[in-house]
Amino acid sequence: MSSPGLFDEVLARGGVRDAVSDRAWLRAMLAAEERLARAQASVGLISAEEAQAVAQACRADRFDLAELAKAAAESGNPVVALVARLRELAPSVHLGATSQDILDTAAMLVIRRAFLPLLEDLSGAASSAAQLAREHRDIAMAGRTLLQQAAPITFGLKAARWLSALQAAIERLEGIRANGLALQLGGPTGTLAAYGDRAFDVVEAYADELGLVAPDLPWHTDRTRIGELAGALGIAAGTAGKIARDVTLLSQNEVGEVAEAAPGGSSSMPHKRNPSAAVSALACASAAPGLVATLLAAMVQEHERAAGAWQSEWRALRELLTSVGSAAAWLHTCLAGLVVDSQAMAANLARLAEVSEVDNLGAAPRLVDQALAAWEAR
Amino acid sequence: MSSPGLFDEVLARGGVRDAVSDRAWLRAMLAAEERLARAQASVGLISAEEAQAVAQACRADRFDLAELAKAAAESGNPVVALVARLRELAPSVHLGATSQDILDTAAMLVIRRAFLPLLEDLSGAASSAAQLAREHRDIAMAGRTLLQQAAPITFGLKAARWLSALQAAIERLEGIRANGLALQLGGPTGTLAAYGDRAFDVVEAYADELGLVAPDLPWHTDRTRIGELAGALGIAAGTAGKIARDVTLLSQNEVGEVAEAAPGGSSSMPHKRNPSAAVSALACASAAPGLVATLLAAMVQEHERAAGAWQSEWRALRELLTSVGSAAAWLHTCLAGLVVDSQAMAANLARLAEVSEVDNLGAAPRLVDQALAAWEAR
Amino acid sequence: MSSPGLFDEVLARGGVRDAVSDRAWLRAMLAAEERLARAQASVGLISAEEAQAVAQACRADRFDLAELAKAAAESGNPVVALVARLRELAPSVHLGATSQDILDTAAMLVIRRAFLPLLEDLSGAASSAAQLAREHRDIAMAGRTLLQQAAPITFGLKAARWLSALQAAIERLEGIRANGLALQLGGPTGTLAAYGDRAFDVVEAYADELGLVAPDLPWHTDRTRIGELAGALGIAAGTAGKIARDVTLLSQNEVGEVAEAAPGGSSSMPHKRNPSAAVSALACASAAPGLVATLLAAMVQEHERAAGAWQSEWRALRELLTSVGSAAAWLHTCLAGLVVDSQAMAANLARLAEVSEVDNLGAAPRLVDQALAAWEAR
Amino acid sequence: MSSPGLFDEVLARGGVRDAVSDRAWLRAMLAAEERLARAQASVGLISAEEAQAVAQACRADRFDLAELAKAAAESGNPVVALVARLRELAPSVHLGATSQDILDTAAMLVIRRAFLPLLEDLSGAASSAAQLAREHRDIAMAGRTLLQQAAPITFGLKAARWLSALQAAIERLEGIRANGLALQLGGPTGTLAAYGDRAFDVVEAYADELGLVAPDLPWHTDRTRIGELAGALGIAAGTAGKIARDVTLLSQNEVGEVAEAAPGGSSSMPHKRNPSAAVSALACASAAPGLVATLLAAMVQEHERAAGAWQSEWRALRELLTSVGSAAAWLHTCLAGLVVDSQAMAANLARLAEVSEVDNLGAAPRLVDQALAAWEAR
Repeated sequence: MSSPGLFDEVLARGGVRDAVSDRAWLRAMLAAEERLARAQASVGLISAEEAQAVAQACRADRFDLAELAKAAAESGNPVVALVARLRELAPSVHLGATSQDILDTAAMLVIRRAFLPLLEDLSGAASSAAQLAREHRDIAMAGRTLLQQAAPITFGLKAARWLSALQAAIERLEGIRANGLALQLGGPTGTLAAYGDRAFDVVEAYADELGLVAPDLPWHTDRTRIGELAGALGIAAGTAGKIARDVTLLSQNEVGEVAEAAPGGSSSMPHKRNPSAAVSALACASAAPGLVATLLAAMVQEHERAAGAWQSEWRALRELLTSVGSAAAWLHTCLAGLVVDSQAMAANLARLAEVSEVDNLGAAPRLVDQALAAWEAR
Repeated sequence: MSSPGLFDEVLARGGVRDAVSDRAWLRAMLAAEERLARAQASVGLISAEEAQAVAQACRADRFDLAELAKAAAESGNPVVALVARLRELAPSVHLGATSQDILDTAAMLVIRRAFLPLLEDLSGAASSAAQLAREHRDIAMAGRTLLQQAAPITFGLKAARWLSALQAAIERLEGIRANGLALQLGGPTGTLAAYGDRAFDVVEAYADELGLVAPDLPWHTDRTRIGELAGALGIAAGTAGKIARDVTLLSQNEVGEVAEAAPGGSSSMPHKRNPSAAVSALACASAAPGLVATLLAAMVQEHERAAGAWQSEWRALRELLTSVGSAAAWLHTCLAGLVVDSQAMAANLARLAEVSEVDNLGAAPRLVDQALAAWEAR
Repeated sequence: MSSPGLFDEVLARGGVRDAVSDRAWLRAMLAAEERLARAQASVGLISAEEAQAVAQACRADRFDLAELAKAAAESGNPVVALVARLRELAPSVHLGATSQDILDTAAMLVIRRAFLPLLEDLSGAASSAAQLAREHRDIAMAGRTLLQQAAPITFGLKAARWLSALQAAIERLEGIRANGLALQLGGPTGTLAAYGDRAFDVVEAYADELGLVAPDLPWHTDRTRIGELAGALGIAAGTAGKIARDVTLLSQNEVGEVAEAAPGGSSSMPHKRNPSAAVSALACASAAPGLVATLLAAMVQEHERAAGAWQSEWRALRELLTSVGSAAAWLHTCLAGLVVDSQAMAANLARLAEVSEVDNLGAAPRLVDQALAAWEAR
Repeated sequence: MSSPGLFDEVLARGGVRDAVSDRAWLRAMLAAEERLARAQASVGLISAEEAQAVAQACRADRFDLAELAKAAAESGNPVVALVARLRELAPSVHLGATSQDILDTAAMLVIRRAFLPLLEDLSGAASSAAQLAREHRDIAMAGRTLLQQAAPITFGLKAARWLSALQAAIERLEGIRANGLALQLGGPTGTLAAYGDRAFDVVEAYADELGLVAPDLPWHTDRTRIGELAGALGIAAGTAGKIARDVTLLSQNEVGEVAEAAPGGSSSMPHKRNPSAAVSALACASAAPGLVATLLAAMVQEHERAAGAWQSEWRALRELLTSVGSAAAWLHTCLAGLVVDSQAMAANLARLAEVSEVDNLGAAPRLVDQALAAWEAR
């Protein structure tokens, strides 16, 4: 685990930061090369010994990240220099591949790895929301529309809505993990020209080696998969932001209906109990819409490899994964052990009672049951 | 069909513009009210006669759009005034509903309707791409990476990639049409408080009436569905933009490999044959990323109804549907009858032949077959 | 004044909507042609009679917007057909110009016109803020950080901050109105080729006729001015959003420190007093960041005229002006007559007094004076 | 100078990366504290000895970045822990300040420092453009609109337009450096409560110490300055992207009118001469619009300190500065020594000569002179 940067514990919290680090990318690029050689050996394009030599060359500790990084400037990506070094050790490496094959495949491996902590934190937040929903299924509170008290709900219902939105975000990401992560292999212009008759076999074998989807066509300039991932991360961020916003509002001194288990302090105002986790989740989630826009705009890629748009994905994708992962981590912290003050809820509701019927909670409890059932059935 | 606005034939082309017009929204809001009454009658909450009165009241020609529009300023949305007028004619209208129930349900009906021309144009573009791929399966041309000639491909492969990306965009939108369009019903704070024991029955009956999905929970401030739609439209725009960019590049005088069937003219330069359809498709597609960002940012909605974010969706959603629909319409025009100059392709390839092996087309033809098979199997 | 569209009184409120309407654009394009002819006459390129004929032809009531709109599809912009019609009446029209000259110049005229109501509403909001600052200079209230009570401020100081930010937004827009609106004239590729020795004279004369800046160079694909405008509008939106957010928060039932003069109602909840103007201002302001991103992304324009990016500006620019104008109009409404409850402020502050020193208002009153002085000195 | 990250030499090139590094931020925060103490000593709030103790404490090598980073999670920003450590050494540190005072002031110092390499690279690119304009003032080439040959221009004119846009971007940033960078000082809620009568004196003295503007009011939640900076950076990115796009298009094999001095290679295609610098500039510039949108959306900040929006600025601002700095660095490389093939220009123009008059270059040479004069007069 690397040292955190100055803002990382606030804005790049949780396990995603390491999963998308330079070292993780290096490992993923090396895995992409190693598995390619294995796949080629399995269909007889190279010998088992050659594949073994590639595997031995592809050890991350052989490589100096800074050196690779510097060499990347010449060719515009870090793969060219990596391959040059690998070829000294194992001439059969990178056979028939192009830089983008390796970098895109590595990106998919990085994404898959980053999904682990991301989904863990989202699921943790959802479990906490489920528990809040269950425990406060029947606890009445003021519903609020346009930030004005409206008709009553239960806190269980509010938490059930959080749960339901989180579940949708989780399931969308799980769907991408299962079916949306595809290897890239096509060679310079995506014709698989180096593989002759064995082209489709290599692709299949590579998919088996990697555990990634074999695409119908190389997708060098069809960035549908990146767009889909961006959308799903944007939605997860939106959901995290919505819940965190609710928590900050409910935590206001004048409302006082919830409090974080470990509120943040202030050096100048010792009395403060800031909803720091929710605030940080909001900060992280705010990064997503702009980054999604960057990735969607980058879908307009020229011919067989883009002149700029592809390259622009690398930082945007990393930032997006990191921000959403961090929002999820903070949301997990925020909801775990959220302190609910049902007396404050009742007191605020009493104010509403002067003007509105407040004892009709409608189907709120049953809606809670429905959301919990959906969560338990996932 | 309404008169087009000054820029509409360029930037709001095709059938989506009318499908998202004010009149279409009015009809959708009235349909939402009418079906709600029918659903309530079907479960016995109101009588068949009452539902009939609602149906009679809900005729679009009874309403003056400008008047409704003006009244919307007072309450912040156009439903309040609409319901006031409807109640004069049919007191059982809007029973237990809140404005957002009607507006969100109407939005779903509008989206469903807008999908018809959008999907028709995307499918038309895909069919044209399929035909181009089939006809030029084996026509060699220069592949180009970073806007430099690289290794050869076939034009069929390029068209097959367009096809494959379009098919993915179409299938994603079809998926949303089938499962992503859900009714909204919850009443003021989403507890279905007015319906007592019949709450879930009303929701089910309403879903049947509308042909929309019945959500587990009212989703007033869970905007997952809007985010999902935005993402899918953003991806469709990205794909349209990628193809259109390719066409503009291939149409350059110095390249000359394709030409639109009906290129645009210029008042000052009669010799010009502008790839107007591709240019317009690019212009329309460019609107999408920013609008998607707006809709994703709007997912952060307070408590039970947002103080601004929900309202901000209305124009952004309309603009996004219109822009993507327009991009699809232009792309359809662009690809239908695209004139391919295989001699120019050969001549440009000859230049590459001086430095690179150009007779190895690899798996290009088989990749075309694979993409065509996937399209035919859809 | 045209009829409002269904959402216009909420999301396109105020005078900007009409200032950017199709009819306003038509008038602006005709003015651009007319003034061009006048300028050419003034330097002797055409005769006074020819210029007079152009002026007579350039009457908006001669033109059918829908027809022009339809014709725009062929050439990709509405100017080509407009000029064709004008030439029938006045052959000397459009001499040496290209479509983009007219459309860009018209855009600048439209922007200048739209700035009138926009600046009026921003100034109205600022005046209201100034009055609030003056009247409540010394009224103590809880300062709030991270939505938690922190140390005391005065309501005057809060209003003074609103004022100061509004003044900055106003001054930035005024600066653009004075120096940032430049005519466009260059002919097909920006060489002023038709004007021979008189090229610079025509540009100067055109600037005089229009009251717009004469640029050093034609700026067909240098969109700095559009980017600058977008940025200034984005900042105005951000400021409007910040103030509106504060008002919605202060209006919460549990806080109760301010109320709008004419709060919005609810059909289902008669007790509600929604801060509708603030909510609508927030909704409008939310549109800006995504639209600014679209316009900035559109700065990447190819060669001497863009293949898509230029065309994408038209709707984005209109939407941005409309949204920010509408946010300003709502903010003006919101702040004019804002009802301040100083007793509620004192009561909330008393809660804080239990933990913090609340009688030290620091320099708050003097900061108010400083902001008011800056406003009065503008 | 720190080691570059894996993608940094492509996407974070040039001197900005180090100027916005964690270490640079730490130094800036320490400078903010040190100068604050000096300012307070100069007006007599603390003694010269106390200020000296603060200065001694504020040495970057005393602090472990990773430790500060970890501590930041508790309070939501890195200042709280920094101050705690400083207070052990110099009790008079941070007197009357709040975390945001230090972090915002530090941000301004970081920005000012980052402007050095950014402006150097933009100016270098502009100088190269000026030289290209001067040298090719009269070299005719095809003007191109909608990616089609239109009427002739000179390459000098094209370069003059690049120059003019770069000059505008530079002057906007220089304006911000001179007048747009303001210190932040207000204490917890911006009332300068700790300073009594000396409040304004402390602010003035602090401005003198820092060489930053003294704002009329603390601007904790008035993010106009951040929005203005974002807009200016977005415009610089748009200009860099426009020029780089032109270079990639002119470098196409089929056009062949320019080539970079040191084109990039390809491991699989040794013949390729990729316009790597232009491609990388485009990739970097593409990041800007989305980040600008993030920063503009973050202007909506609650009350006296935002619950998320402020915190979201940190990474977005760093990413934006880095991306634009990197685009400028690549553009500088791209234009320095750009190889111009006037024979290719003539040959392409000959093709146009078949359909259009190509010997009228209009005012192109004089426009070049005008742009050069403006550049030399800066």
